[in-house]
Amino acid sequence: MSTISLTLDEIHDLARAVMLANGCDTANADALADIVTRAERDGSHSHGLFRIPGYVKALRSGKVDGKAQPVVTRRTAAIVHVDGGGCFAPMAQAAGLPVLAEAAAEVGVAALSLTNIHHFAALWPETEYLADRGLVGIACTAYMPMVAPAGSTQKLFGTNPISFAWPRPGKPPVCYDMATAAMAMGDVQIAARDGKSVPLGTGLDAEGNATTDPAKIAEGVLLPFGGYKGSAIALMVELLAAGLTGEAFSFEAAERDNHDGGPPRGGEMVIALSPALIAGDGWEDHVEAFMDRLTGLEGVRVPGARRHENRQDTGPRQINRALVETIRGLS
Amino acid sequence: MSTISLTLDEIHDLARAVMLANGCDTANADALADIVTRAERDGSHSHGLFRIPGYVKALRSGKVDGKAQPVVTRRTAAIVHVDGGGCFAPMAQAAGLPVLAEAAAEVGVAALSLTNIHHFAALWPETEYLADRGLVGIACTAYMPMVAPAGSTQKLFGTNPISFAWPRPGKPPVCYDMATAAMAMGDVQIAARDGKSVPLGTGLDAEGNATTDPAKIAEGVLLPFGGYKGSAIALMVELLAAGLTGEAFSFEAAERDNHDGGPPRGGEMVIALSPALIAGDGWEDHVEAFMDRLTGLEGVRVPGARRHENRQDTGPRQINRALVETIRGLS
Repeated sequence: MSTISLTLDEIHDLARAVMLANGCDTANADALADIVTRAERDGSHSHGLFRIPGYVKALRSGKVDGKAQPVVTRRTAAIVHVDGGGCFAPMAQAAGLPVLAEAAAEVGVAALSLTNIHHFAALWPETEYLADRGLVGIACTAYMPMVAPAGSTQKLFGTNPISFAWPRPGKPPVCYDMATAAMAMGDVQIAARDGKSVPLGTGLDAEGNATTDPAKIAEGVLLPFGGYKGSAIALMVELLAAGLTGEAFSFEAAERDNHDGGPPRGGEMVIALSPALIAGDGWEDHVEAFMDRLTGLEGVRVPGARRHENRQDTGPRQINRALVETIRGLS
Repeated sequence: MSTISLTLDEIHDLARAVMLANGCDTANADALADIVTRAERDGSHSHGLFRIPGYVKALRSGKVDGKAQPVVTRRTAAIVHVDGGGCFAPMAQAAGLPVLAEAAAEVGVAALSLTNIHHFAALWPETEYLADRGLVGIACTAYMPMVAPAGSTQKLFGTNPISFAWPRPGKPPVCYDMATAAMAMGDVQIAARDGKSVPLGTGLDAEGNATTDPAKIAEGVLLPFGGYKGSAIALMVELLAAGLTGEAFSFEAAERDNHDGGPPRGGEMVIALSPALIAGDGWEDHVEAFMDRLTGLEGVRVPGARRHENRQDTGPRQINRALVETIRGLS
């Protein structure tokens, strides 16, 4: 694969320029360029520049408003709402997360519902934001239907990611961000392209039969990770991200979307909890004694550790040349 | 299996009498008899009378205080704490859940931490209590270490159950309650007794090798459900139930326990959210449209439906005769 070496600043500038060229104001362009740059910095390539063509499609079709001004409302001491006004999610998060963190620090637990947004990024930036402020973070969002509930052969759930972060003062947080599908559809498509098989349980073919052939799964449905139990987690995500925000369930997002290739309109739920107010003094040492046990086990890595290791490297990143040229062509 | 037919009242009286005979005051005996009776009513036999010998052991060893008076503190508008004073969990829940529900109805989200309790029951009574009041409920607790984190061969996590309930006005809630272990150790032991194999991924033998032989898993470790992703959920439960309450992690619970065969001291975290305050008007119809899609899929059952079907039967239950005689012998 031919690559181009870009510094993190150059990645930011590239993302910012293409967003400005496609109708974003500076605030929206900065929020998006920031999230894209952080993804590339941490090695989350599938959520970095790779997403830019989709973002541009959504701006050009008019589905997303690149000049949206999200409206933040603190409805109660513990409830924050952001109406994104049709923006990409990072703009709405930038507006809502500081208010959420303030509320959780004041009353111990708070919830942020984001509506009228278009989520196409990772979820760990939200939960890590909270963990960096000494708070526990839980975030989830729904998406287009791709996953059949356990027992069924018909898709209803999105890949429905959930992210969780636990603060570790002086250390990177425990932080994971995972689809509740057994495998991301993108990885299934890559396996199909490369002629590889995927584990049984990844998905079903168009007739509803279990298969290890990724090409057949791409025409069928994904399955939740972990059978019935994983399906229960995917259901919780669907209910929290859509039922509790009042925004679109995955099936509604698909029905309403203009299918321009960009992210559909949807919602996101973020919950923040304060160990300082709930567990009280000494919570850090108590948890670190557990983390010592966990990290002392052979074969175990702290979720998020690889991202934080990648982050230590402030040097240039090697980016797919064709992708960079595509993005430059969109300006 | 020889059984005895007992009405629900007789089950309640049997449980109550044995608790009173072993040092409980009426409030503690009633709370426990109530939770045991509801388990038998709903067909959750493993959390019903089956648990009584373990409860009695914990009372007789002095580990659990059958006359404990839990102390409820509303620390902030959104945080409720119950110090159980060494009681069985149902007594502390009976004290804390009404205050949690009140807080969530007022400010939209609230968290209840329970400490100094001994949890030996199902978690669905807590979340269903909240759903019956129009609230979303999430509950989790840690336990003795039995489960190896993904990638490891050493046990560190408890079976770490998580329960989730979503309110459905006029209908039974969506409500599940599941171990984050691939299989409960009790079921592994039953499979070993019956000479059956278990699915690969259930656990490891004492040398850390994957096996389908339940007898070898009983001497080794359980695995989380769903590989790395299920392990991440089990880790979240451990951190919420112990790190966020300030109570014992599973490994601490084991180190501190007197190994009398009853439940160790531990903590529980319960979170309640108000769809009325977060999603706002119309949330019920919005979610029911999704539930119609879900229940319209062939092969899909609403989590909790079987329990609610069992509940419709108000007649007597067939209880293992040897168990009833054992319990009567404990009075």
